[in-house]
Amino acid sequence: MSTHQFPIRVYYEDTDHGGVVYYANYLKFMERGRTEFLRSHGINLDRVHQEQGVMFAVTHVDIHYHTPAIFNDALHVESALTQCKGARLQFTQRILRTEASQTTLLTQAVVDLACIDDAGKPSRIPSNLLSVLKQYTHKEL
Amino acid sequence: MSTHQFPIRVYYEDTDHGGVVYYANYLKFMERGRTEFLRSHGINLDRVHQEQGVMFAVTHVDIHYHTPAIFNDALHVESALTQCKGARLQFTQRILRTEASQTTLLTQAVVDLACIDDAGKPSRIPSNLLSVLKQYTHKEL
Amino acid sequence: MSTHQFPIRVYYEDTDHGGVVYYANYLKFMERGRTEFLRSHGINLDRVHQEQGVMFAVTHVDIHYHTPAIFNDALHVESALTQCKGARLQFTQRILRTEASQTTLLTQAVVDLACIDDAGKPSRIPSNLLSVLKQYTHKEL
Amino acid sequence: MSTHQFPIRVYYEDTDHGGVVYYANYLKFMERGRTEFLRSHGINLDRVHQEQGVMFAVTHVDIHYHTPAIFNDALHVESALTQCKGARLQFTQRILRTEASQTTLLTQAVVDLACIDDAGKPSRIPSNLLSVLKQYTHKEL
Repeated sequence: MSTHQFPIRVYYEDTDHGGVVYYANYLKFMERGRTEFLRSHGINLDRVHQEQGVMFAVTHVDIHYHTPAIFNDALHVESALTQCKGARLQFTQRILRTEASQTTLLTQAVVDLACIDDAGKPSRIPSNLLSVLKQYTHKEL
Repeated sequence: MSTHQFPIRVYYEDTDHGGVVYYANYLKFMERGRTEFLRSHGINLDRVHQEQGVMFAVTHVDIHYHTPAIFNDALHVESALTQCKGARLQFTQRILRTEASQTTLLTQAVVDLACIDDAGKPSRIPSNLLSVLKQYTHKEL
Repeated sequence: MSTHQFPIRVYYEDTDHGGVVYYANYLKFMERGRTEFLRSHGINLDRVHQEQGVMFAVTHVDIHYHTPAIFNDALHVESALTQCKGARLQFTQRILRTEASQTTLLTQAVVDLACIDDAGKPSRIPSNLLSVLKQYTHKEL
Repeated sequence: MSTHQFPIRVYYEDTDHGGVVYYANYLKFMERGRTEFLRSHGINLDRVHQEQGVMFAVTHVDIHYHTPAIFNDALHVESALTQCKGARLQFTQRILRTEASQTTLLTQAVVDLACIDDAGKPSRIPSNLLSVLKQYTHKEL
């Protein structure tokens, strides 16, 4: 199975005065998860840009916030690549907290990305990347 | 009409090394827009919390990224309250850039919020707030 | 006098679960103040980079935190250019809160910047900028 | 020796459009380092607050930026507790990048903190904490 797990610790910087993680910061955690998913399959985004002149830009996020994370929580991000074709990737991601024997789903998102060139134009995913990514694409998280 | 406009200037802090505003930061801009929408109708979130013991927590965001903002852009956030009942608010928001005579839609989002108490439980929107908010609710942005 | 004033509103994004503005975020406020100081004297950092190939990088910050800002505070940043020569600028900055008739000093900083080229090497401040900046340099905030 | 090492990976969220880590974000990295230094000695800041009613607030930062970090860098934060008495802690911290066999010093800071109660008043460091911290205090990084 290709679901990727990445640990996140919640620091002061992540929280807001409501006592919970600020809603935009889950998007940072999810991007860390995507970056590490790609790295775990040998894909480093800086090298992709330097060598192939493309980047991945987020075009759409649909995110549900179920339960808030708080300071000092040990979370993990689950990431699955659920679509990959042409110039387009889709990740399905979850952030979970596991304490003792209980796992709680905190947030869940579908994130669409476009492969773009330096001018910001959509560009087919380079074939060497695509062949790697296709191996790790599956329909569900 | 009840669409609220709020200006945003893009600073270094908002950008990333792709040369554009980092995708999570548009959610900050949108929250500034919602906070100012409420303030413009006499609702200050700190006083609401102190006096009525409730807060508004984001439960869902659906956001489309059309065109990136860059450093130094003068943007504005358009916010409309598109639902308001029980313990629930929904805002429809857009971030736009206007230069010379051209307006460009950058991002567009639907943001759902729940009114919660200090224990994080859903709580009906206090009636004095609700009666103000209902006046400014309309179906579309 | 050349002290520049710039208003800042504190939003949720700026606070942490201690109920106050997160300590790193005052550096964001101070950079907004410097950017607007420069803009008020006709200097836009994006155009400076495009036209003259230089940027200003922070090399040193000495910041004292006296009193915390909280959510919804209306602050202002005071910025003075206290040195300007060769490849080097120094700003002295304060963040203050004014309520009713009382002004409170929250943070105070000295920020040193170097003018650098795209390779990150120190580069003399372009003479057209320097002549503008020198007019607005004075020894104290 | 009591110097604590904590790894940091640089993500998109940390960078700015200058292509480097945004200057305020090193303060986030340094706070992660301090939090983990304390955790490694059995001190969790959330439990300290709950059980003893105190927090640590930063009162002063003196930070030098020598070399910028860039996207994807693998850094580490070195933290040493260089003072500890009364209501006051001082950390001396460095952020370094190690690649191949070369280590580069990126930033270096002295950070002063005050132990405060919920009202924000200085409060002596609780004796059980103080006795732990004193063991790990030394004069230099």
